[in-house]
Order: sequence, then C-alpha cells, then structure tokens
Amino acid sequence: MSKVRVGMVGYKFMGKAHSNAYRALPMFFPNAAAKPEMKAICGRNPEGLEQARAQFGWESGETDWRKLIARDDIDLIDINAPSDAHKEIAIEAAKAGKHLFCEKPLALTLEDSKAMLDAAEAAGVKHMVGFNYRFAPAVQLAKKLIDEGRLGEIYHFRAVFLQDWILDPDFPLVWRLQKEIAGSGSHGDLGAHLIDMARFLVGEFKEVVGMGETFIKERPLPTSMTGLSAKGSKDAPRGEVTVDDATLFMTRFENGALGSFEATRFAAGHRCTNSFEINGSKGSVIFDFERMNELQVYFTDDAEDVQGFRRVLATDAAHAYMDAWWPAGHTIGYEHTFTHEVLELMNAIAEDRQPVPNFHDGVKCQEVLEAVERSVQERRWVALQELQ
Amino acid sequence: MSKVRVGMVGYKFMGKAHSNAYRALPMFFPNAAAKPEMKAICGRNPEGLEQARAQFGWESGETDWRKLIARDDIDLIDINAPSDAHKEIAIEAAKAGKHLFCEKPLALTLEDSKAMLDAAEAAGVKHMVGFNYRFAPAVQLAKKLIDEGRLGEIYHFRAVFLQDWILDPDFPLVWRLQKEIAGSGSHGDLGAHLIDMARFLVGEFKEVVGMGETFIKERPLPTSMTGLSAKGSKDAPRGEVTVDDATLFMTRFENGALGSFEATRFAAGHRCTNSFEINGSKGSVIFDFERMNELQVYFTDDAEDVQGFRRVLATDAAHAYMDAWWPAGHTIGYEHTFTHEVLELMNAIAEDRQPVPNFHDGVKCQEVLEAVERSVQERRWVALQELQ
Amino acid sequence: MSKVRVGMVGYKFMGKAHSNAYRALPMFFPNAAAKPEMKAICGRNPEGLEQARAQFGWESGETDWRKLIARDDIDLIDINAPSDAHKEIAIEAAKAGKHLFCEKPLALTLEDSKAMLDAAEAAGVKHMVGFNYRFAPAVQLAKKLIDEGRLGEIYHFRAVFLQDWILDPDFPLVWRLQKEIAGSGSHGDLGAHLIDMARFLVGEFKEVVGMGETFIKERPLPTSMTGLSAKGSKDAPRGEVTVDDATLFMTRFENGALGSFEATRFAAGHRCTNSFEINGSKGSVIFDFERMNELQVYFTDDAEDVQGFRRVLATDAAHAYMDAWWPAGHTIGYEHTFTHEVLELMNAIAEDRQPVPNFHDGVKCQEVLEAVERSVQERRWVALQELQ
Amino acid sequence: MSKVRVGMVGYKFMGKAHSNAYRALPMFFPNAAAKPEMKAICGRNPEGLEQARAQFGWESGETDWRKLIARDDIDLIDINAPSDAHKEIAIEAAKAGKHLFCEKPLALTLEDSKAMLDAAEAAGVKHMVGFNYRFAPAVQLAKKLIDEGRLGEIYHFRAVFLQDWILDPDFPLVWRLQKEIAGSGSHGDLGAHLIDMARFLVGEFKEVVGMGETFIKERPLPTSMTGLSAKGSKDAPRGEVTVDDATLFMTRFENGALGSFEATRFAAGHRCTNSFEINGSKGSVIFDFERMNELQVYFTDDAEDVQGFRRVLATDAAHAYMDAWWPAGHTIGYEHTFTHEVLELMNAIAEDRQPVPNFHDGVKCQEVLEAVERSVQERRWVALQELQ
Repeated sequence: MSKVRVGMVGYKFMGKAHSNAYRALPMFFPNAAAKPEMKAICGRNPEGLEQARAQFGWESGETDWRKLIARDDIDLIDINAPSDAHKEIAIEAAKAGKHLFCEKPLALTLEDSKAMLDAAEAAGVKHMVGFNYRFAPAVQLAKKLIDEGRLGEIYHFRAVFLQDWILDPDFPLVWRLQKEIAGSGSHGDLGAHLIDMARFLVGEFKEVVGMGETFIKERPLPTSMTGLSAKGSKDAPRGEVTVDDATLFMTRFENGALGSFEATRFAAGHRCTNSFEINGSKGSVIFDFERMNELQVYFTDDAEDVQGFRRVLATDAAHAYMDAWWPAGHTIGYEHTFTHEVLELMNAIAEDRQPVPNFHDGVKCQEVLEAVERSVQERRWVALQELQ
Repeated sequence: MSKVRVGMVGYKFMGKAHSNAYRALPMFFPNAAAKPEMKAICGRNPEGLEQARAQFGWESGETDWRKLIARDDIDLIDINAPSDAHKEIAIEAAKAGKHLFCEKPLALTLEDSKAMLDAAEAAGVKHMVGFNYRFAPAVQLAKKLIDEGRLGEIYHFRAVFLQDWILDPDFPLVWRLQKEIAGSGSHGDLGAHLIDMARFLVGEFKEVVGMGETFIKERPLPTSMTGLSAKGSKDAPRGEVTVDDATLFMTRFENGALGSFEATRFAAGHRCTNSFEINGSKGSVIFDFERMNELQVYFTDDAEDVQGFRRVLATDAAHAYMDAWWPAGHTIGYEHTFTHEVLELMNAIAEDRQPVPNFHDGVKCQEVLEAVERSVQERRWVALQELQ
Repeated sequence: MSKVRVGMVGYKFMGKAHSNAYRALPMFFPNAAAKPEMKAICGRNPEGLEQARAQFGWESGETDWRKLIARDDIDLIDINAPSDAHKEIAIEAAKAGKHLFCEKPLALTLEDSKAMLDAAEAAGVKHMVGFNYRFAPAVQLAKKLIDEGRLGEIYHFRAVFLQDWILDPDFPLVWRLQKEIAGSGSHGDLGAHLIDMARFLVGEFKEVVGMGETFIKERPLPTSMTGLSAKGSKDAPRGEVTVDDATLFMTRFENGALGSFEATRFAAGHRCTNSFEINGSKGSVIFDFERMNELQVYFTDDAEDVQGFRRVLATDAAHAYMDAWWPAGHTIGYEHTFTHEVLELMNAIAEDRQPVPNFHDGVKCQEVLEAVERSVQERRWVALQELQ
Repeated sequence: MSKVRVGMVGYKFMGKAHSNAYRALPMFFPNAAAKPEMKAICGRNPEGLEQARAQFGWESGETDWRKLIARDDIDLIDINAPSDAHKEIAIEAAKAGKHLFCEKPLALTLEDSKAMLDAAEAAGVKHMVGFNYRFAPAVQLAKKLIDEGRLGEIYHFRAVFLQDWILDPDFPLVWRLQKEIAGSGSHGDLGAHLIDMARFLVGEFKEVVGMGETFIKERPLPTSMTGLSAKGSKDAPRGEVTVDDATLFMTRFENGALGSFEATRFAAGHRCTNSFEINGSKGSVIFDFERMNELQVYFTDDAEDVQGFRRVLATDAAHAYMDAWWPAGHTIGYEHTFTHEVLELMNAIAEDRQPVPNFHDGVKCQEVLEAVERSVQERRWVALQELQ
C-alpha cells in the first residue's frame, strides 16, 4: 500500500473532521489503495495550532502555509481554512506539485474557483472538493437507485437545508456572517451542499431564479468562536451582517426535471435538516441528514395493496461502505462521511485518476451559486449559460 | 334492500358511535344488503334520553329496556349500556327473538358471557360483539397479508393499549373504575381489544401469565361524567378504586407464537395508543391506532438494498372499505370502524349468517380475560383449557 | 334554532363531501346556530342525480340549476359543479337572493371571481368559499399559536401539495386536465389550497415568481370518471393536456416572510401530501394532511435539554371542534373538515355576518393564482399590485 | 495526564469497537483524566491476531492471555473474548493486580460472575462491565430527567431488543447459538442490555416471570464467522441450537414500577431495535437505538393545547458528551457509546474510584438473567431474593 503524506491548513471544525478521517481510514478501510500520513498541520495562531496538532495527532505544525507547501515531505495539501483563503493556497500548492483537497465552497467567486481548477489542471495534480454528504451510505443508495433506473425518469428534486443557530438576534457577527470572508451566508454554506447533491443525483442545472433575505441586519461583534458556536455580548458594539440569512431558488435541470431549493439559518427547531426528495416516474426517495442512516424509498410497481415509502436503514452489508463498520442496524454518524470521502481521495491518488467530486464539481457548484446570486440581484431568471 | 329495525340501549359514548354508524351506512354503503332503521333509543334518564334521541336521530325513545324488547317493530337490540347491564338485556332480547349487537366486553364474567351466547344460540338469532378495531382498513390489510401467507409463519405478537386519562390522582372515581359495574379496569376495557385483535390475526390462546396493579387506590367520587371525561373535586369524599390501572400478560398461542400484552391508563402522553406488531417468517406488520390509516409492512424477500418497513397508507381503492369513502390519501377516523362493523352486521342478517365477530368471539375473549385475572390472583401460568 | 334550506349543484366527489357535512352537523354540533335542511340536489344527468339524491338523502332533485335557483324554498345555493360552471350559477343565485357556498377555486379567472364577489355583495347575501383544510383542528391550532404570538415573527412558510394519481402516462384525459373546464391543473386544484392556507396563517402576498410544467403532453380520452379515479384505455384516441402537471413558486409576503410553494401530481408515493411548515422567531409548526390529526410544534423557549418538535395529537378537548366528536386520541378524518366548514357557514348565516373564508378570500386566492400564471408565462416576478 | 496501559483479549466485533474507542478518546476528549495506551492485543490465531493488531493499531500481540497478564507493562485487561472465557481471564488478571474491563454478559452463570466480582474486590482493582448503551447521549438525557424528578414517579418500563439476523432457518450454528459458549441466546445477548438499562433508569428488580422459545431447533454447522455474519451451507451437517431464540419476561421493580421485556432474533425488519419506554407520573420518554441520537420526551405539565412527545435530537451542547464531537444536529453513531464508556473508565482509574457500570452491575444483571431462566424452566414467578 502506498502512502500519501498530508499537510493540512486549518484546524477548527473542518480540520477536526478531516483529521479524524485520516486517523480512522487505515483501521476501518485497511484495503484502501493508499494510506494517509498526517505529516503537518498549519494555522496562524501558534498556541491553538500546537493544541490541535497534539490533540488530532499530526507529526508537526507550521504557522505559515507557504512553508507547508514548500516542504518536500508533503504530497497533498488539505485546505479547510475559512473560504477567503482557499484560492491562493490552492493555486500555490498546485504550482508546487501538491495534490489538493479543498473544503467547499471552493472559493468566494466563480472566477476564483475557475482559476483554482485551471491551476490544478495545469499542474497535473489530483484535486478534490469536500462535498462530504455525497458519502453517506443512504445517499449512495439513492444514487444507485437512480443510476440503475429504478426511479425512472426524474421529475422533481426538492431540497432544504434548515438550521437555527443564528435565530437569536444577539448571536454575534462571526466570520460566517461576513461576506468578505465567507462569500455568502446560508447560500454558500448550506445551499452549496444542496446544489452539489442535485448535480450528483439529478444532473446539470439549466436556469435558476432566486430570492434572498437578511432578517437580522446588525449583530454584536463576537468575542470568540469555536465550530459553529460563538460567544458574544448583547452590549457589544454591532456590525452589519453582509450575507444572506436565507436564500431560496427554483431551477430547471437540463434533463427537464424541476428543482426547488431553500437554505436558511432561521428555521426554529432545525439543527441540521439537510433534506431532499426526488420523484421519478417509477419511484421516489427521501433523505434527511438528521436521520442520515435512513433512506425512504417508494416504488410504483410494488403490489397495489402494500405501496408505501420504505424506511430503509442503510446499514446492511448491501449498502455502500457499511461492511467496513458494524453489523446491520448499528448506525454511523456525521464524521463517517469524511472517512468515506478520504477513502475516495486516497484510492484516486493511488490509482492515478481524479477523485470525485473534484474541482470541476466545485466550479459547477459555484456557477449555480453565482447564477442564483445574480438572479437575486437582478430579479430575473438566469441561464447557467450566461456564466459559462 | 331489506330493512333491519334497530332498538338501542345506551346513549353515551358508544351510543353516539353506533348512532353515527347507522346514519352513515346508507350513504356510504348503498349496496349494503340491509338498511338499518333507527326505531328507538333507550335509557333511564328521560331528559338525557330525549336529548340524545333528537340529536342522534332516533324515531322514538324508551326509558325501560323491557318495553323496548317487547316492541314488535324492532328486529335488533343494540346494547351499549355499561357492562353490568349487558347480560340480562341480551338474554331477554334473545328470548324475544331479537338479533343482538352488544358492545364489548360481552359481560362481567366468563360465565355470564357464556349464558349470553347460549341464549342467543338457543333463540336462533344473529349476534355480534363490538370489537370495532378489526374494521380499520389497515387492520383488515394485516389480516389479508396473514391469510394469504405473505407474513409466513407467525412468531411474535406484541400489543399495547396505552392511555393516560386517569393519570391525575384527583381524577374522579367514574364507573369505569368500579369493578361491580365495569368488571375490570384497563384489562377489560383496553386489554379486551388487544385480545380480540390477537385472536383475529394470530389465533387462539393456549396459556397466559399476567400481572396487574392499581397505582392510585382511592379517588374522589365524581359529580358528573361524559364519554371518558368526568368532573370531580379534589375535596370530594373518596372511594376505593376496585379495578386495575394496568394489566400485563404474556401468552403462548396454540400455533406456537409468543404474545406480549399491556393495557394501562397510566402512560403519560398516550391518549389512545392501541398498537400491535406481528413478526412472521416472511415479514412483519405494525399498527398504531393513533395513526389508524397506516400499516407498516416489511417483507423479507424485498431486494436486499431496499429492505425496510413500508408506511402503507391504507386509503387506496385496493384497501378494504375505502372505495366507499374518499379518494386515495384522504383519511378516515375512529368512527368509521363502527360503520364498517354495522355493514358486516347488516349483511350478515340479510344473508342469514352469523356476523363476525359474534358472541362466540366475545366468549373466547372473556376466557382469556378471566384466565389472566386468575393468573394475576394465583401468580401462576393458567391454561385456557382450565376455563373451557 | 333557525333553519337554512339548501339547494346543491353537483353530486360527485365534493357533492358527497358536502352532503355528509349537512347530515353530520346536527348530530355532532347540536348547538349550531342554524340547521341545514337538505332540500334539493341538482345535476344534469337524471339517473346519476336520482341515485345521488337517494343515497345522500336530499328531499328532491333538479336537473336544471336555474329551476333550483328559482325555488322559493331554498335559502342557500351550494355550488360544487366543475369549476367552469361556478360563475354563472353564483351570480344568478345571488341575484335571486340566495346565500352562496362555492367550492374552490371560485372561478376560472380572477375577473370571473371578482364578478362573483361583486354580485354577492350587491345582493347582500352571505358567501363562503370551500377552503376546507382551514378547518382541520391541527390547522386551527397553528392559527391559534400564531395569533397568540407563540411563534413570534414569521420568517418562513413552505408548503407542498403532492399527489401521484396521474403519474401513469396512460391515465385518461379527465376534466381536471382540461383548461377550459378546470382553469388550471395542479396549480388551481392543489396550489389554491396552499395559497389559502398561507393567507390564513401568514398574511397577504406581495410578489411571486413561478414555474410550471406539463410532463405528459397527451393522454387517452376517458371513458368514465368517478371522484379522482377514472377509466380509460391505452388504445383510446389521445387529446392534449392543457393544464400544468406541476407548478412551483416563491413569494415575499407583505409582512416580510418568505414563501415556497409546490403543487404537483407527479410525486410518486404521495397520495395527498398537503403539507406546510412555518418558522417564526419563537417557534415552528409542521402539518401534513396525511396525518391530519397531528401538528408538530417547536418552541425556542423550551428548556435547553428538551428542545424538539412536539407531535401534538390535536384531538384533546383543548383543540378546536374536538369536544364535539370523540374522546382524546380518537382521530377524525378528511370529511370532518367539511362539517366544521358547514358549522361556520350555518353560524354566520344565523348571526347575520359573513362566514370566513368567503368570496373575498376566494378572490385574493385567485389573484395569487393568476399572478403566478402570469409569472410563469412572462418569466418574471409579478407584484400582486399589478392585478389589484 | 496519566496513562493507562491496555492489554486486550479478543479481536472480533467487540475488539474492534474497543480499539476504536481507545484511539478516539485522546482526540475527542483531550481532557480525560487518563489516556489509554494500546500496548497489546491477544488472540489464539496468530494470523488473525497480527492482522487485527496492525489494523487496529496495537503495539504488540500475544497468543496466550496468561502471558499478556504476566506482562508488567500492562495496567488494564480488556476482555471481549467469547463469554465462556471471561471468568478465568478476569480472575487471573485481578490476581495479577490488573484493572478489568469486561464485556457483557460478565459470565455464563451468576455464580461465575460473583466469583469475578469477588476476585476484583479482593485484588482492589478497578472493574468495569461493557453496558455501552448507557452512554448514548439520549439515554443519558433520560437518566438526567429521571434523576431530576422531571418524569415524576415511575409506573412503567417496557423494552424490546429486536433483531432478525437468524430468521433464515439455514443461517449456521454460530457460537452465539451454543449454550456452552454463549450462556444463553437472545436473553443473555440482548436481554442483558435491557436489564442493565432498566436498572440504570428505574432501579432494582423484585421478581420476574418469563417465557422462552427456540423456533428453529437445528441449524447447519458454520464454516466461518465474522462479527454477527457467518457463512454456512444448507447442505452442511446440522447441530442442535441450545439457546433461546426469544425470551420475554415481566417484572415488578422494588419501587413498584411494572416492567415488560422482550428479546428476540426473530423480528423480521428489525436489525437492531433496542428500544424502551418509561412512563412516569409527570412524563414519559421513548428511546430507539436505531435512532440513537433522539429521545422522545413528554411532560404532563406542558400547556394543554400543545401536549405531545417532543423529538429531542440529543446533539446539542446541553447534552452529555456532545460538546466533544460536532455542532448541534450533527449526529453520532454506535461506536461513540464505547468512546464515552472508555472515558468513564479512564476517569475512574485516574480518580481512584470504581467506574460505573462495574462488576457489581454485571452481577446484578446476571441475577435477573438467571432469575428469568429459572422462571422459564420452573414456570413460576421467581423473586430476586431467591438468588441473593
């Protein structure tokens, strides 16, 4: 088995998720074609970095990503720093001949994401983008049913990504609420996942029309932040929220299916409802990430007296990845999607092929994100062709 | 279409449910083999009776059930007065040549119920007992799947009937909490339904072992009561609760299946969870009356990647009774089970056959009830044979 | 108690539902301020009419609606004939001084619906439109929570009405698929209910943008039709489907909330999923008509360790209408919404006030329907003001 | 932070789960009072052992557990070999002064389990038993609600552990179906978990009455086995199944609550339904391991119009362990219960206190198991006192 020596930029929420995946892979997927070596972790704050390095189990730490890239004992650069940092790091790393694994959204703009793809292609390196939800076994099952024609022709895709973590007007103005760092709000953070899921399962977008809203225009400046949680004070000075709290849009896919999308952080009671439904001529599927081990499946050709959505617990040996984990009925969680993602990454590098999803998928997602933003601003239908 | 002239004893909760069924039948089942005529309603309190008569739409009222029975313009006596009154009325009505429709439990004791069956058989009249839950379309679907062998050999039946209406220790001592009127508590009221369901779907009981409890031993005497609700006062004088608050038992069926039963009025959050699950060698079904239009169905021979319980909404034309009501997906409610029950009663009378379930089923249910009571008292397994 | 003498035009699906409501009202709501008298039913086919008359329990039959209107023993005209007939009947009936109860959609066009409202207002009669879903107790609970401020400020309304009864390309071309009779397809049939629900719960629409599709362009001509089911033949001559199979739209409400709507008849597995979710600053509610006795309710101020959507079974005495029916936990069905609707109608007539919803609500719904249609055609946002 | 040097006996299903927990602990719980060191793994088959050692990440391997115990670089012996091996290893390890972590059931008999407890106590070592389900955050929430009196007085506990992995009569005769190795079947394997859960949440058992069944009496001898899956051949020679396929029992707890238990491997459609419900005077909770991140919670003092079971997703920072993992709404899986279990073990060792649950809990569980077995054999109620 070959080895892939990893240098990772970022050590917060995603850095933790990726680190866990690198650690878990060899134990649960001993037959992976390559094994990650956790060479170096990189971040600007030396103390935070050292704590993360020790906790997550990286061999060394770097406080300057340029130094990380310059190291010749690194094969792959994993980029999960805030979104505004993705572009420069990725391009420089590509130039240095490093393979790339970048969190979504690829960049703040479509233009930037294309530059990243171009750089990676020019350098001839492998590139992957972190749409981890594809790798839930229940989602893989949906994909399989569609690919095998068991849902027939697709008519409808409807998806919502509902959260409620900033519902409190006094929740502080963290970086995810600042356009210059995050690019956009619920749209780029949550909607991007829905868009990728739609591309994965249904196909390319033809045209979109969208609307967005920022319900709370000003928030207290934060004092600290960890993961998605943050601390602030009601009485802190306030700053302007420059991203969307909610973005909705409709689409027509190239294959004629209709799509409905909604991403919001103002849906009380929903911690992480990343959910979609697909209706085809022969059946339907429903997925909700809060019950990520389940896929509801309906077939029109079931006997007429027992037609109904089946609650399939996608933990059997017949389901993707599950023979690597526990016996049937023993569920897995959020983090496992990253382990499966890293499995694809390692296999692709070892097999000298591009992993899926890769920067091309990141660019296509960015096209849709940007088409929706243009539609929101100009209040009109926007064809994807306009951006291509 | 022939007519069946009905005289009904009782005008409370069950009287209302039966009246509605008689009214609804001709509209929704115009092809029923006989049509009920609501001739007379009978109750002891003249005012209450007249109000019920007018409200429910009966032609006339009687305050003495003996007079009702004596009337020659009555074909069928419907008995839904409190349980302690069933026996005498049924026997006298049978002697007078009237068909019988009696609410469950048939009587306070097995002996009494046998006397009622004997009287009905001796008189050659039709007799039905009111196990209405059999007539939910979703339950009929379970029956069909079993009869057609689609669940295979039955291994398990587990059922609970959970309510919470007397959870408050100050809820008054209504008649359903008094042994001399109600016979038993949760056991006869709720457990009887489970037992009948088990007999309907699985078969006869071989032996039982049970346990019971009265959590609240004394309660305030009531001031008034309607349906299952009642009014009382914390400061009212208290009387002894003489029935069980909860009764559990296990059984072995004649066919080797194992059964588990629990009836309680102390299950907070459960208004009317009348639920069962059946596991067979080829599949399973789950029913919960709070979602009475649904049956969950599992088949072992589904394709291995899409095995799961199907949520079948039993409102399609393929489901029992449903073509009489509304289009698929338009649900029905509690009261409809009585309409279907009355349909069976009318058809049976017109076709000169015994309806199902009839007094024989009432007696068999009473056997199990009494076997469980004996088991609770004597703290031992009791074979049904002991009571036969 | 006063009486309202009813003449009803139409005797199919809706005629049956209305008839049942008139029959049920006096039994379950004896305190209604007026009692309906089922005077006459009207339809063009004498045989079908007579069968319906006898089955549903109407005193007499008329084959010409003009004769019905001319009768002086009729106070109220109930119009549930196909949508293209609504306008003329309603206007003539108003001129004749009859109160009006008209099924939705009020008319084929906004203009027609306004003419109907004007006629009713000019005649000074009472007028009601049949948005029956408002009258589900669980929906009434949602309304109550919003009105009492328990959900706070409303941010989101998202609703779908999903059916699958025409998924089969060989399902025949029934009247609901013909624009000249039905006005529109899923949009007017299903979407109209969603729009009314949104107006009822959230408020008026400000602007909309929509999209629509007819997936199956031609279908066999039908040979017969009942309710939503119909018979045809694959080999029958085919005609063009002139209505939408699916229509989606987004909206901004006057109060700033965002709305998402989807109505389709191509959602495999969904017989009648009429579902909405509302997210507010203090909580959320979720309703699904296939489980119409339930409302899921979330409050942000629940203790932090037990926050979650509550599954409220809206069958307690604390819930609207439920003390009229059965004890807590004993569910009701689709038809009960009509009984509650007729209760409002009878009370309003007796109390000399307009019932709610009335023709004004019908017109407002039609405005939104037509704004969406314009948006679909012209591929742009349409402000409701354009149509007012 | 101190270190605990671990030697582990067993490397199959449980060995994998424990290994993962040791690996995950320092990353996710860096503040644990002690850190496990994966010193040595032990098994009889040298090839299988070496593969597991390398895959799971242990420093060394031993093929003789006596040698493992003799090593002075080991502080803790983790025993997850088949149940018949537990006793001897545990007693010898205790004599050698090693702390003990033993999978459930502690031993094949009550007598053996007592001997193990005695040995551990005599040696003054720490001892833990592997009832991992206690450590699901949703279960911890149930415990918290009960301890804080938020469910009031407990009336009912009902639990089922339903699986279907041996439903096929040709599934081979693996060790779990042989009494001399496994001790018992569904009873000791699944029922033991339910019993421990009941003790954890409700309290001690007073008396029990049970029944059991072996539906399939003979099975083909196996050719190989991994985890819960195994390979066999229809045509292989057959052996007798010497354990129960299903065991049911009822109990009265010391505090007066009633309990109902069912463990079966013949429940088609249930891969791993480890579920319980508790009803108290102030509320109820429902847990199902197939949706292990959720606890349904009901409170009687909720406002009367919004009473209902709340679906609490126990992934908030307010829930046990969850701040160590991912943001709210991001679920965890089966394996995480072991990580939490190991956290308790490490903390207890570092703090010089007995972990919970420990061998005392193992013995108490065994008492109930054996009381039920005696009840099944002797067909009578058995008081726990008889075995104490």
